[in-house]
Amino acid sequence: MERLAAQVGFILEVDKLKQILRQTLVSGGQGRRENDAEHSWHLGLMALTLREYAAEPVELLRVVEMLLIHDLVEIDAGDTFVYDEAAQASKAEREERAAVRIFGLLPADQAARVRGLWEEFEARQTPEARYAAALDRYQPLLLNFATEGAAWRRHGVRRAQVIERNRHIEEGAPVLWAAASELIEEAVRRGWILP
Amino acid sequence: MERLAAQVGFILEVDKLKQILRQTLVSGGQGRRENDAEHSWHLGLMALTLREYAAEPVELLRVVEMLLIHDLVEIDAGDTFVYDEAAQASKAEREERAAVRIFGLLPADQAARVRGLWEEFEARQTPEARYAAALDRYQPLLLNFATEGAAWRRHGVRRAQVIERNRHIEEGAPVLWAAASELIEEAVRRGWILP
Repeated sequence: MERLAAQVGFILEVDKLKQILRQTLVSGGQGRRENDAEHSWHLGLMALTLREYAAEPVELLRVVEMLLIHDLVEIDAGDTFVYDEAAQASKAEREERAAVRIFGLLPADQAARVRGLWEEFEARQTPEARYAAALDRYQPLLLNFATEGAAWRRHGVRRAQVIERNRHIEEGAPVLWAAASELIEEAVRRGWILP
Repeated sequence: MERLAAQVGFILEVDKLKQILRQTLVSGGQGRRENDAEHSWHLGLMALTLREYAAEPVELLRVVEMLLIHDLVEIDAGDTFVYDEAAQASKAEREERAAVRIFGLLPADQAARVRGLWEEFEARQTPEARYAAALDRYQPLLLNFATEGAAWRRHGVRRAQVIERNRHIEEGAPVLWAAASELIEEAVRRGWILP
């Protein structure tokens, strides 16, 4: 029962992911910012729906596992906006401390497994991680476009930044990168992304 | 590209799940109600974390797929509070219409697959569906307890109702039902659930 108590402790602790706000707005949400739990759910569902576009054959369960846990470190480390270069510099250290604390709530075997999944996701060296990371970038592009570029416009994001930060979509899902590229160009034409 | 356009249409439509509020509060959320997208993410993560308690061997990917899609019909049908018996009566018809419209946004092969997963979840006739359904009931018990019985107290929920509505946890995950039963009795002792 000690093992179950640790697992339930983890499940209750990660409830806090629902309070971590991202820059992206939810569509039809009257300006409400998306939180990390909603984002993670959306990515899991996208992984299932778009599986045929993965660049290589993937073990889909591992993709979904990575996506459901990939943002847990943000409970302590906060969400780091992808175009905020100063914050990006300190991200690794903040997230490392968070991983030790949060994954460490689980029984040791499960803590090691989740840690491994998180590292795999971050390193993008496996087909599963590349596909998962592609979705993690494609989803905010879709939502930003659907909300008339709200997050891009608020931060004055430039076309070159968007391409630089998102082009690894191509490694994980080339068809989705083609679709994303069209969407970026259309957003530039509409004035939502700076040229 | 027509196929991808349909898939992206579905992905953007289901963004609305983030607006469907449940009766349960998120912990530490100053009274904020949980939405269906957050709930679905939490269940997916619970399925991974608690897999050893499934009553029978399960194909975990199918469990997670069911959990990520099981509430999509609520985009049209709304959340039906588990202890609201009048609303429960019309639930099936409202959800059936929603399933036709929402799953129908997908290409036909995927629409049929998601429809099948949803029906499997609702019917609870497979080990995967019984485990998934157990988690769908255990999670709000945990959150209600963590928020001092907020949803139970607001609706004056009685012990017999809680047991009646949640006892099928036992079919999917007997260990979790034992833990849930203790939690229910403690909530009665604290006055959060009526005797």
